[in-house]
This record gives sequence, C-alpha cells and structure tokens, in this order.
Amino acid sequence: MLHEECGVFGIYDIAGGDVAHTIYYGLLSLQHRGQESCGIAVSNTSDPRGKVLSNKGMGLVNEVFTGDDVDKLPGNIGVGHVRYSTAGSSTRENAQPLVLEYVKGTLALAHNGNLTNSPELRENLAYTGAIFQTTIDSELIAYLVARERIESESVEEAVGKAMKKLHGAYSLVIMSPRKLIGARDPFGFRPLVIGKRDSAYVFASETCALDTIGAEYVRDVEPGEIVTVNSEGEIISDHSNCLPKDRHGHCIFEYIYFARPDSTLDGISVYESRIKAGKYLYEDDPIEADVVAGVPESGNVAALGYSMASGIPFGQVFVKNSYIGRTFIKPGQKRREDSVMVKLNAMRNAVEGKRVVIVDDSIVRGTTSDRIISMLREAGAKEVHMRISSPPFLWPCFFGTDVPAREQLIAFERTIEEIREKIGADTLSYLKLERLGDIVSNKINICRGCFTGTYPENPPEEDIRGEFEK
Amino acid sequence: MLHEECGVFGIYDIAGGDVAHTIYYGLLSLQHRGQESCGIAVSNTSDPRGKVLSNKGMGLVNEVFTGDDVDKLPGNIGVGHVRYSTAGSSTRENAQPLVLEYVKGTLALAHNGNLTNSPELRENLAYTGAIFQTTIDSELIAYLVARERIESESVEEAVGKAMKKLHGAYSLVIMSPRKLIGARDPFGFRPLVIGKRDSAYVFASETCALDTIGAEYVRDVEPGEIVTVNSEGEIISDHSNCLPKDRHGHCIFEYIYFARPDSTLDGISVYESRIKAGKYLYEDDPIEADVVAGVPESGNVAALGYSMASGIPFGQVFVKNSYIGRTFIKPGQKRREDSVMVKLNAMRNAVEGKRVVIVDDSIVRGTTSDRIISMLREAGAKEVHMRISSPPFLWPCFFGTDVPAREQLIAFERTIEEIREKIGADTLSYLKLERLGDIVSNKINICRGCFTGTYPENPPEEDIRGEFEK
Amino acid sequence: MLHEECGVFGIYDIAGGDVAHTIYYGLLSLQHRGQESCGIAVSNTSDPRGKVLSNKGMGLVNEVFTGDDVDKLPGNIGVGHVRYSTAGSSTRENAQPLVLEYVKGTLALAHNGNLTNSPELRENLAYTGAIFQTTIDSELIAYLVARERIESESVEEAVGKAMKKLHGAYSLVIMSPRKLIGARDPFGFRPLVIGKRDSAYVFASETCALDTIGAEYVRDVEPGEIVTVNSEGEIISDHSNCLPKDRHGHCIFEYIYFARPDSTLDGISVYESRIKAGKYLYEDDPIEADVVAGVPESGNVAALGYSMASGIPFGQVFVKNSYIGRTFIKPGQKRREDSVMVKLNAMRNAVEGKRVVIVDDSIVRGTTSDRIISMLREAGAKEVHMRISSPPFLWPCFFGTDVPAREQLIAFERTIEEIREKIGADTLSYLKLERLGDIVSNKINICRGCFTGTYPENPPEEDIRGEFEK
Amino acid sequence: MLHEECGVFGIYDIAGGDVAHTIYYGLLSLQHRGQESCGIAVSNTSDPRGKVLSNKGMGLVNEVFTGDDVDKLPGNIGVGHVRYSTAGSSTRENAQPLVLEYVKGTLALAHNGNLTNSPELRENLAYTGAIFQTTIDSELIAYLVARERIESESVEEAVGKAMKKLHGAYSLVIMSPRKLIGARDPFGFRPLVIGKRDSAYVFASETCALDTIGAEYVRDVEPGEIVTVNSEGEIISDHSNCLPKDRHGHCIFEYIYFARPDSTLDGISVYESRIKAGKYLYEDDPIEADVVAGVPESGNVAALGYSMASGIPFGQVFVKNSYIGRTFIKPGQKRREDSVMVKLNAMRNAVEGKRVVIVDDSIVRGTTSDRIISMLREAGAKEVHMRISSPPFLWPCFFGTDVPAREQLIAFERTIEEIREKIGADTLSYLKLERLGDIVSNKINICRGCFTGTYPENPPEEDIRGEFEK
Repeated sequence: MLHEECGVFGIYDIAGGDVAHTIYYGLLSLQHRGQESCGIAVSNTSDPRGKVLSNKGMGLVNEVFTGDDVDKLPGNIGVGHVRYSTAGSSTRENAQPLVLEYVKGTLALAHNGNLTNSPELRENLAYTGAIFQTTIDSELIAYLVARERIESESVEEAVGKAMKKLHGAYSLVIMSPRKLIGARDPFGFRPLVIGKRDSAYVFASETCALDTIGAEYVRDVEPGEIVTVNSEGEIISDHSNCLPKDRHGHCIFEYIYFARPDSTLDGISVYESRIKAGKYLYEDDPIEADVVAGVPESGNVAALGYSMASGIPFGQVFVKNSYIGRTFIKPGQKRREDSVMVKLNAMRNAVEGKRVVIVDDSIVRGTTSDRIISMLREAGAKEVHMRISSPPFLWPCFFGTDVPAREQLIAFERTIEEIREKIGADTLSYLKLERLGDIVSNKINICRGCFTGTYPENPPEEDIRGEFEK
Repeated sequence: MLHEECGVFGIYDIAGGDVAHTIYYGLLSLQHRGQESCGIAVSNTSDPRGKVLSNKGMGLVNEVFTGDDVDKLPGNIGVGHVRYSTAGSSTRENAQPLVLEYVKGTLALAHNGNLTNSPELRENLAYTGAIFQTTIDSELIAYLVARERIESESVEEAVGKAMKKLHGAYSLVIMSPRKLIGARDPFGFRPLVIGKRDSAYVFASETCALDTIGAEYVRDVEPGEIVTVNSEGEIISDHSNCLPKDRHGHCIFEYIYFARPDSTLDGISVYESRIKAGKYLYEDDPIEADVVAGVPESGNVAALGYSMASGIPFGQVFVKNSYIGRTFIKPGQKRREDSVMVKLNAMRNAVEGKRVVIVDDSIVRGTTSDRIISMLREAGAKEVHMRISSPPFLWPCFFGTDVPAREQLIAFERTIEEIREKIGADTLSYLKLERLGDIVSNKINICRGCFTGTYPENPPEEDIRGEFEK
Repeated sequence: MLHEECGVFGIYDIAGGDVAHTIYYGLLSLQHRGQESCGIAVSNTSDPRGKVLSNKGMGLVNEVFTGDDVDKLPGNIGVGHVRYSTAGSSTRENAQPLVLEYVKGTLALAHNGNLTNSPELRENLAYTGAIFQTTIDSELIAYLVARERIESESVEEAVGKAMKKLHGAYSLVIMSPRKLIGARDPFGFRPLVIGKRDSAYVFASETCALDTIGAEYVRDVEPGEIVTVNSEGEIISDHSNCLPKDRHGHCIFEYIYFARPDSTLDGISVYESRIKAGKYLYEDDPIEADVVAGVPESGNVAALGYSMASGIPFGQVFVKNSYIGRTFIKPGQKRREDSVMVKLNAMRNAVEGKRVVIVDDSIVRGTTSDRIISMLREAGAKEVHMRISSPPFLWPCFFGTDVPAREQLIAFERTIEEIREKIGADTLSYLKLERLGDIVSNKINICRGCFTGTYPENPPEEDIRGEFEK
Repeated sequence: MLHEECGVFGIYDIAGGDVAHTIYYGLLSLQHRGQESCGIAVSNTSDPRGKVLSNKGMGLVNEVFTGDDVDKLPGNIGVGHVRYSTAGSSTRENAQPLVLEYVKGTLALAHNGNLTNSPELRENLAYTGAIFQTTIDSELIAYLVARERIESESVEEAVGKAMKKLHGAYSLVIMSPRKLIGARDPFGFRPLVIGKRDSAYVFASETCALDTIGAEYVRDVEPGEIVTVNSEGEIISDHSNCLPKDRHGHCIFEYIYFARPDSTLDGISVYESRIKAGKYLYEDDPIEADVVAGVPESGNVAALGYSMASGIPFGQVFVKNSYIGRTFIKPGQKRREDSVMVKLNAMRNAVEGKRVVIVDDSIVRGTTSDRIISMLREAGAKEVHMRISSPPFLWPCFFGTDVPAREQLIAFERTIEEIREKIGADTLSYLKLERLGDIVSNKINICRGCFTGTYPENPPEEDIRGEFEK
C-alpha cells in the first residue's frame, strides 16, 4: 500500500480559549494521513515567554492521548501532527511537532511533505555549526527559519526567506509566541486549508478536519503562500514565493487515495474526483457484469462511479475487520502472511455465480490483489474484472509519498496483460493517464510524476529518502 | 447502541501443533462481539496434569496481545474469548476464559450469553459453601460442572447435568486436559459453529472466524447439544438436552446487527437476511428518492437490499473514521458530545439537493439518528427518509444483549410519528414485526422478546442484570 | 538468601474515616516481608452489601500504587498484603488479598504462612465440588470459612471452626462487611500484632508498621487466638484454639533475619535478640581482631553486639547500593553473575591491613559469603573471620520460609571446617543451637525445625511446597 | 536534602566487545548521583557512519532498562548518564546522553555539572541561528563543539576550543564515531576518573563504578584536562586548559555527602574524609554520651569517626526503610507529611535512657532534624546531641548542586544556638570551616562557596538556575 506521510493541524483562538481538545479532535479526523506517531504542542499567547507545552508519542491519537493528557495542555494557540515516516525513522525522537527555542523565543512546527534538497541543506547547516537531534526535515526548516529570523523583521518574513531555500514538498503550520503561520510549497504538492470557528483560526491538511471540529472552510492556502494569523485576528498573506498556476503540481494521489472522500482540496471534491475516475473506467473500457464493488475502503467511491456509469448494481462484496488496521501496516511488523484474510473476507451470497467488477485505487506489489481475486473465486465468483482508478505507477515519489523500490512494483517491466495474468483477473484495466486531469476537472495543475517520471520540480539526483538513518 | 456481550473460540489440534496464534486470529475476527476485554488459555494434551497457561486483559485483542505474548502460550488445545460486559462489571478479574482447577484437573471456560437464574444458582452454591471471585456467570457454570463431575463418568456428562440447571442463554467452549467441548443452550439464543482445519477441530461464535483461519465449516452446534472432541479426534454428540425445533429462540439481532455479514449462522446467511430486511422496508412502505445509503457499517447491507428492491441508486453518503470506534463506546467514557461528528461525516457532493433514504439497523435512544439527520440536512439533502431494519424495540433482553433501561429507549411511550418528529426525519418506517421470520426464511425459530416482551423461556422475575456489582 | 513469604495488615476505623492511605503506609513498612506482589482491599461498613474495592499487582507497593490509585479506594475497613511466593507461583492471579463473595456477603483475606495439609484440604474440597482459581493457600482457608459459615452464628465462629482443619503456619487478617478479624495458628509460627490509633484498630505483621502509621501497640494476637473487632469497636477474643505455651513454636528466624530490628514480636525486641546473638558469638568463641562489621543490612545489629561484647571496634566496611535490591532477588531474573559486586563493595580504607570479623545472619548456598570474603581480601584485609548469628541450617521449613532444596545448602554433608574452607574464611563459627532460646531470653517457645529437623507440628510426609504449579 | 545533579559513564572496547551491559552496571553504581532520568547511547566503531542507538527515560536505571532493553543496544563504544535536574526541567526531552549529528558525523554527550554562563552562551548561539530542543547545558556544549569542529583538526581539538568558552562546572564524557573523550572543567568541581578493563577504557564519575564492573583504576582526569581514547587504544592527553593546582576548586560536598564512601576521588578516599570529619567533630567540641549514631546512610561514616575519637560506642539507632527512597525525593511529590516516619524509625532498645550523639552530614531546612530528634526522645533518649559533619551552609551553589533558596535554609539569619533551639537538640555543633581542608588532608584545593559565598570562579550576576523553564 502507498502511504502518505503526515497530517498537520493548527489553531489560534484570539479570544484566549483552550485549544488542545480541538487539536485532538482535528488530529483524530486526520489520522488516515499517519498512524505511527502524533503530537500536540500548545502555548499561551498571554505568556510573554511563549512557553510551549507538548506531548508526543508513538501510536494513534487515541493511544498517545489518554486519561487527562489533553487537559494537561492548556493554551490558546497550538499545532498538532500525525505522522507516517518516509524520511526519518520511526522513533519517538522524530515525532512532531518539533518544539524549539531560538533567538526570538519559542517555535513549534508541524510539517507534511518531503524536501528534495535536505542533504545539501543539512550539509550546509552542519558546515556552519548546526547540530541535529532528529532525522526529520522539519529540523532543517526550523534551522533555516531561525537563521533568517536574525535579519528579519518578523517570523513570517523569516519563513518566506527560508522557503526560498527549500526544494520539494511542504505544507507547514508554525506556532510562534503570538502568531500562527500556515505555508505551502510553491508547487502545492500537499494540501493545506484555512478554517474559522468563532474567534479561532484554523489550519488543517484537509477540510474533513474543519467539519469535525465544526469550523467553517475559509479557503485553501495557495501554493507558495504564507498565511499569518496575528494576535489581532488579522490574516496577513504573503504571495512572494508563489508560482503561476500552470507550474503547480498538486499530488493527484490525494484525490485518488490519500485524502478522505469528504474533503475538498484546492476547490476539488475528493468524492467527485473518485466518482469520475470510476465513470471513466467504465466508459473507456466497458464490460458486462452482475455486480461492481470496491476494495474497502479506498475503492468504494470509484466503484460507485463505475456503477452509476454502467448501470451494473453496486454491491457490498467484502467485510472488512475494522479493529485491526494499524497492526498490520506498522513498519517492522512480522507475520504478514495471513493479513489479507484477517482484514477482509468475501461474502459468498453477494458473489456466488456472478460476474464481479472490483475497483481498487492502485496495485502496488500485487500481492493483495492476487489474494482478493482468489478470495472472490473461492466465494464462487464466475468472473473477476479488476479496475484500477489510477494509471500504473512506476516511478518514485520524492514529494511525500512512500512508494516501494521500483523493482518491487508489479508494473515494473510488465505489460498490463502480464499484470492481469499475475494477479489472476479475467480482465484488468487502469485509468488512462490522460484522464487524470479530467478527474479534477482540469481546474488544477497536477503532478503525474509517479506515473510518468516527469516531476514539476527537479528530483534529487539520487534517491535520498531515509538516508540519514542509514 | 446495542451491544453483544461475547465471542468464543476453541481449538484442539489432535496432531499436537500449537494453537495460540490461531486463537489470536480467530478472536481478531470475533472482535466485533466484544471490545472490553479478551483472553486466551491453552494447555498441552500430552501434559498429564493439564497445566493451563493463560493471558487475559482489558482492551482489544491486538492491545492485550503484543510483542511475543502469543508465542509465550504453547499448547495444542485452547480457548479464547472477547467480552463486552452486560453482567459482571468491566474489570480484569472478570475477563475470560475462566481458568480453574477442580477435582479432575484443570478447566478453562469461555461463555457467550446470560443466565436468567444466576441469583438462585449463586445462592444455592453459596449455601453449600461456594466462594465467588468474579461476578460473571461463567463461574457459576464452572461450579455446577465441578460438582456434577464428582458423580459423572466424564466431563461431558457433567456438562450435560449442569446444563439441566442452567436457564438462559449460553454458548460455551470448555477445555479439559484432553477434551474440547462446545455446548449451547436448548433455545439456541447465541450461535456456535464447528469447523475443521487439517488435524484440528474448532468451535467459534461465527463462521467468519473459520474463514479467517482457513478452516472449513462443518456444522452448527445444535441448540441443547454438547459436542465433545476427544484425543482420538472423534466428535461425540449428546442431544439429551435438546428441545424440539419449534421451541428454539435464536436471537434475531444476530442477523440484524451483531454478527458479521459474512457469517452464516444456523444455516442462514447474515448478508441475505439483511438484504431481505432492506427489500421488505421498501416493499412495505415505498417512497421516491434519489439515493439510498446505510448508516455505516451496520446499515449498509440493508440499504443495498433497499436499493435492489426500489431501483433507487445506492450511494456512499457518509465517511466513517475507522480509527476511533472503541474510544467512544467504552463504558465510562466522558465527552461524548462530539462523538457523532468525530465518527461520521456526510459528503455534500453525495447528498446536496437530493432526496435521501437512510437505513439503520435500529434506533436506541435516538440521539445518533438525530445528529445524522441534521448532518445530512446541513450537507444539503432535500429530504431525509429514515428506514430501520428491525421493529421498534421496547423490552429488555435477558439473553445476552445489553439494552438500556426502558425509559431511555426512544420507542418507549412514543408513536412512530412522535419518534419521526423527535429525530427530525421527513418519513420514518420500521421493519414490520411479521417480517422478522421472513428475513431468516422462516427456517429457524427466533426470539422476538425485545420487540414483544414475550420470550422463549421465562425471564427472571426482576431485572437482575449487573446485580452482583451493586 | 532466605525469604519470608508475606506481610499482612488490616485496619477498621469505627468512626468511618478512609483507611487506604494508612494501609499503603503500613505495607510500605512491611515491604521487607515480600516484594513480589501486593494489594489493598477496602470496604465501607455503612454499605449494606459490603462491596469490596481492591487493587493488586506485581511489584513493590510504590510501583503498584501510583498516581491517585490509593485515592480510588474509599472505605473505612480494609486489609493489605505484601507477598513473596513460596507456595503458589508468582503471578498476578495469586496476589493477595483474596477478595470473594460467599453466602454471607463479601470477604477479603490476607495470609502470612504456609499450610502443611493443603493437598488434603484441596483434595477434600475438590471432592465436594470446589473450584480453584489460584494456587495460594488463602483460597483453601476462604473455602473452609465459607463452608463453616453456613452452620455458624458469626464469621468469627466460622473462622474458629475452619482453624481446626488447618495445619501449619498462618497469620490471617480477614475483613467481612462489618468486622475485622485477626487470627494466628496455635503454634504462633508467624507474628501478628494489634494496634490502635484514635478510633481505628489495626492488625499488622510487625510493630514497625504501627510506628510508621503512628498507632499505639496494644498487644500481640496470641497463638491460636481469634481477635474480632466489631462495629461498636469492641474487641472480642476467642481462645478456643489455643495451645499451652510450651507447645508454641515461634519462628526464630523472624528474630535472626526476617523482621525489622525496630519491631517487637511476642514481647521480644528483635534488636535485643540480635545484639545478644552477636554477644554469644564472641563469648562462645572469642578471637582477636581489629574491626568487626556486619554484612548489610541484616548482619549489622549482631555485629554491634559482637563489638560490645568483645571491645573490638565496630566498623562500616561495606557500601550497599540501595537502589537495586529487588532487581536481583526477583524470581526468574537472569544475569545474577555480577550481583554481589553490584550490590556491595568493600572499603579499602576500612579494612586494609586489618583483621576483620564479619557477621552475617546465615549462610545459605555460600556463594555470597565466598564473594564477600574475596572482596575483603582484595581490599587488603589481613584476616577474615566469619561469624554467623544462627546455627547451620539443614532442614526444610514447611511453615512459611523459602529454603532452597537441601542439596543446595552449604551445610548439607559438610562440617563447619569444610564450609570454612569452601568460603575461604580464616575462621568460621556459628551461633550454638543451645543459644537460640537465650537470644529470646527463653520467654517464648521457638521452632528450631530448620536447624534440627524436629518441628512443633508434624510436617507433611513429602515436601509439597509449590506442588500446585507443577 | 541537597542533590547532586548527575553521574556520567563512558566506555570504549577497542577489541569490539559490546558495552551496553557494562554501562548499565556502571550506571547502577552511580545511581545515587541522580534518580530522575537516565540513558545509554552506544555506537559501533566499525560502522563508517557511526550510527548511534540510544534509550533514555524517566526513572531509575532498573526502571528504564527492563526486559531485553539493554540487549537491544549493540556497540563497542558508549556513554551513559544518570540525572537529577537542577538546570533544565525534569522531562524526557532533557534526559541524557544528548545524541546528535553534526558536521563530522555523530556525537553523544553526557554531562555532570552546571555552566555559569549558559544565558550568554545561549544568547550568542541563538543570535547566529541556533535552535534549542532541550533546556540542558549539554546542548550548549554540543553546539560549541560542533562549531569549533569546523575549523579543527579533530574532535578533541574542538572540545578544547569549546572549553575556553565554558564557565562553571562540567565533567564530560563524549562519544564520537571512533573516539571516547573525557574532559573536566579547569577548577575540577566535579569528579571524573579513568579506568581500564582488558581491552576497554572507561570514564566514570566515581571509582565505585570501576569496582562494580571489575575495572582497574588508572587515574583521575585532571581539572582542565581532555583525555581522548582513540581506536588504537592510545590515551591522548591535552592539558592546555589546565590551571595551577592552587586555583582548583573541588566540591567538598562530594566528600561530605554526594559520593559513595567506597569511592576515591582525586586521590582522596571519601571514607577517610568522613572518618576525619567525625573525629574533628568530637575533638573540637567533646561531650559525654552513651552512644553515637549516624543518620542513615550519609551520617554513618562520620559517626564512626566520632566513635573512634571519643570512645563512645557506635550504635545502630535507626532503621531505614530501603524500599521507598525515590518515592519521596521525587520533585513534585505530594503528601510529604509522613515521609520521615515512613523512611526512618528509632529503636527504643538502642536509645532508651541514653545520652545519644547523632551525626548528620548537613542541615538544610531543619525539618528532618526536628523529626529525628523528636523520634529519639519518643524512643526514650535522655539527651540528644546533634553533630553536623559540615559547616552551616548559607550560599547558593552555581556549580552543580541543588541548594534551596537562601530564605529556606535553616542557617539563614540564625545563630547556631537558634538552630539548636529550633530543632530541639540538647547541644548542636557543626564542623568548623577551618577543618574542611583537613578532611581532605589539604592535598587538594576545595570550593567552600556554599559556606562562605566566595567561589573559585566568578558566579553569574544573578541566580540563573532553571531560568530556561520559566
């Protein structure tokens, strides 16, 4: 499976109310973006020193924060983070938000994305005396901000200058003693939205977090934009790092798989984009069948789109065990052998004697697809037609998605027919590459790097993901 | 929400292979039947003393068993249990399986159900010198078996005699040093199935556990039957406690809500019974609408049946946060106020401007329905029609289901019209009482007690659930 | 090292004040009697049902009770226990107090000692239908009390009848809904004292616990006596199980090693008895030396007595690491190889060039003595004279002390000269057997079983300690 | 009570053997120097990147390292730390060793002491772009080393340059990928010794740690010296930061209280210095008495010296509960009210009717002395004479000792007679100031700052301890 690396959240209640519980609920709704570690850092803007209280740990939000942990974090400004590690190993030291003191007081940073020039940045910083206590990119960003701050009028000016040195993907939420800042790389790889609830301003990776906490959606932070909320409740916007829209490179996998379908990112409904992907799958390669179903959960909406376009009834074909998700996706977990059967089961009564269309968001190594198709055949399916709501992906992502090594990808040096044969489907088709723009109504410019090997921004010369742990 | 109280699992590998990992996977697949505590007890049939190793704890299966906990339970015979507490408070002492030594060696018991004569049994036992270290019914059953064993030829004979003294619901799996026994009350309130995998025999609450571990379904333990697996791998059946089929009282809520839809219980597919419930909901009270959807997860299959019958397209209208289930259903949890919004969100693009039919399995207090309907209206639904795949329930269950006090039930002293008004639906209808038999094709005799107040077996004179903690 | 198995504590505040914190402090002061597990059970005498709240766990008192754990145990009557396992394995199930419900309500038991007829009792109980959920003697005692209670007027009468069936050592504290009972076996093997603080009556294994909580010493429970504190604050005494004083068999090792030196047990100061033992060691076998020291902590007082009698200056020769005690005495602990050096170090400046007399309470396997003597020689001691404040012990204890198997005892089939040679001392002498009575001023009748093999009460025919775990 | 802040340990096995277990045992023997947090960091010198594995946590060494935690730290070079917080709050982030990456690879630092110019250092570093993730001095030291490293030939050269900027007390052990460095501030405030065991070189705060692991004492690191162990097993010494001996300022409280009596620091036996202190206490102010005893543990050796000089018999007067130490000294602990009685008890038989001399190392607030004297009187002492083996202290320590605010010190604005009256002693005398040099035989130059207010090095203008948490 592919993995997103992070979700970020920030809130500033100008009127002084405590925010930690809201961050907690916001992180719960972003949990799908990272299940390895999480953290909350808060401060009180009336404290002249801006002392930061934080709690971070390994595990899900409701595992790390138990009992009265959240109550012990008073403060009216704060940031939160959920993490899946692509760069930086999976240790407590690397949990975010990063909390630090620098020349102007305290900072807390939450970062979603992956820098492509971290080795150079790290080397440059080290050569001027920096020390690194983590292996996460956020520490590099913090250093750049701290250094730029010396000659800057404000923290947001320092963020702007630091951004000029950052390459790659980053959606940031930064808390300074009396300001909350949201910023996004000029390509807009990762999402970041602005919300408002009463006297509080909110930044979050996805709009679903706004819905959960009852905040109103204001707008997206634009690619390259720096949005600062100050203590008067003013929103100050800095567009100096922005690029023209046609150079943007929004990650299309946010729509295909990562984001929650109830989110709207950069003006595009995730639900709608999946419905469209399903429709195109049928329209571009129609087939006759008795039932269409999604591989839960991520294939469901595209399957519904397929059903709408084809008239083939939508069916619920699988039961998913909702209690065990994380156990099996945790890095370093052994005994994966039974994991598909433990997580999914096919319902004989739903498929027996039927021609089944199964929609999934992607095929990575192909092992899950293989098991799912066998499971359907064992449950009596007469035919199994696999439909994938994205093109075959073949290239690494340097911008915040965890893709296995190329050689492990089923699409590597295989034709679609060879893949079909390997997974045992009767037919197999993928979403066409030219349809990717259509599923977001061609309203935003997307990154197709993982399908084409062509990226909006130059990738690093060698694959540097995870280098600092080697 | 209603709660089942337990899931049971047992396995005996005649060839001597270790079984704890299989029990672990079996319990994972029965986790929906109980999330408060769980446990595994194993033994080695080649050990003359039948020493039992066990591990029990509060929490989900993958919370209690971490690291190499399962590896530390060697043995070729074992039982497992997942628990939600209705009788017996939610403490570690009450976790099952109950492990004990008696006149003939060791026993381990796992029990699903609720006895109706536990106060009398307890009193009788106490008056002859019994001491009680837990508040669970299983301890009473163990005592009766232990006492009957003295004058019996075999443990299964003792179980048979003990059963004559038990009233109420019980599906039992019992491990003695060299036998594994499955037994079920004469009314068959709770399910219990038999499976086989290679040299191992299995008992489980539902067939989904057999699928997960790759075992073949053999048959159901019959109501009143005692099935003994001995060390030769023979299956010995004792029907002396059985009742004629027309006196059976299978819990209909297993089909409507508790069991996993991929399970087949007493010959009836849970999936099919829900599809039928959805069809009858449409047929008995048709309405025009643009989309039909289930309240996840339990309403989905019935919604699909409604869609099939009506031709109204099935839609995915809600997103469920799959990471937080247990946090909010745990007894004693505070801060429930936001729980519906944290768990569910409606997708505007799926409902805006539409007439929506929503199918749920039941309405308990009505607060969730109320929130769901508001959520749909806020997301732009033009009409919201609520359909419930069971009749209104109004009566306590004494046979293993946790129903709130009558006064808390929305259907208590309210007409359907009053309920509709209270939850804010445009229309509301329930499954008709006379349809209950139809959804299981009238092949089995069911208990309708929670809808009618008439039970297959006399209920206790007063509500005794939870008495021993008072 | 030898190990005591338990410490018990009970308190009943007639005026209704909470007692859990007092039990906590009492257990802290009895911690030396058991470090494996501990527990507190409390109840409220104004609660008609006598509901018992308890918390038990593996570890030291301040490890098991952290945060507000003690605050969560409201109640004006309670018992506590610290445990080292001799009979019954070291698992959470076996932690005490044992809490149970029986025909007359609730009971909580804390037991110090070891029954010698537990197999027979267990068998008899099993043959009349008892089930056992632990492997501790306390469960047998509870059963006997529960059965006798049926035909008895009061719980104390039932305790008295049960005692007639118990053989071996037991000091008991029992909490019933409105009475607190202290009882002791007729031989008085293990201590039990009565204290009073304001409106509260207290039972404790040693007077040091009374000092810690600021209670006044009232008297010892007599061997065979049952002392009942009722809700009027009356103390009712039952002597019907008492034996003449010359049949008593107080454990002499309580004075030599187990008890804290600030305790007074059955009228004898532990401190004084150790001072005397040290004096006799010198008087019965005088030697010239430059310094005398104890092996910390248990040898210190006897060494002081030796110094007083001999005029040889008392010295502090060892430093003990006070942070690691339990880590190395915990059953099942590996890596014992360095344990003596980690726990003790000799001070060169205190011993270099000197003739050193070292006093210890006993030699068990001899490995520690060997290491200590080497350590002293490496630190420059010219001569090392070992003095042991008890006779060589050679026989098992069936009355509550954990003595290794005979073959592991250094005194087994060795003369004193052979022992001296093995441990490498220049001279070695033990307290003479005939001095044992003298160290308690011949005021109480003592058990010399571990030195002579002759016991006050018949031992079991075979060594049954720990049998139920086999 | 006064508190030391830290103990450090480092080891490098040139032959490649694993060192984590040795560090574990070394830290156990330094546990008295810090009980709040601890950590171990190791590396493998054959790994070209010098990857560091570490484990740190809150609590005692045997609480943080349990199960196979130590086994999971393979490597032949490593550092360890035990910590009591004076500067830097008591949080997991502040646990040491500090592990970091810098321009030349990895570093791990363990630090004992307190810098006096940390605010200036911090400010200077911040003004050149440093970020701080902890509030401990070690992070400042690491930054200085990292910055100096850029223009230095070697890490030890960088350490030497960094030391020129550090004011205050520091004993450091630093691990670089292939070197282990021990360094000490030019005044020698805190101890640091060198040991050797087979192919391994060791640094430790005290010689007792060498004894525990079976290493041979080589010599002390000299004040101002930098000792580097390289991969050839050579010891390279850099004296360029050393000061003449008469400017040294060894902390006299190491001898009086902090260090273990079996340690020898800078050539002076801690045991001997305490014996001498006891002797002077008698000689300078003789009194007649029946028994002399120490307040355990720290007063024992001085009491022994007093006994030797006076001929008054040494007695064991108190029993100390050895299981509860840390519970009551932990910062933030409530319910201190009973703590003296829970920790100590007086033995009536040892004091009744006697004139008692009690020796303690110091009086801080006086509350403990008050309780102890009452306890002795309640136990029947006829007279109680208090003797303190150090002069009254009145001034803050800026060099690594945690002294309460002046106003809380009993000696603040009180004459000795007033103190005597307040604590209720019959007589009271302190060690004379002029005796301090004598107790270390005037062989080393000591710091008397806490008694005189005159320090070897200028203290900071204002008390900056703990500032960064404010």
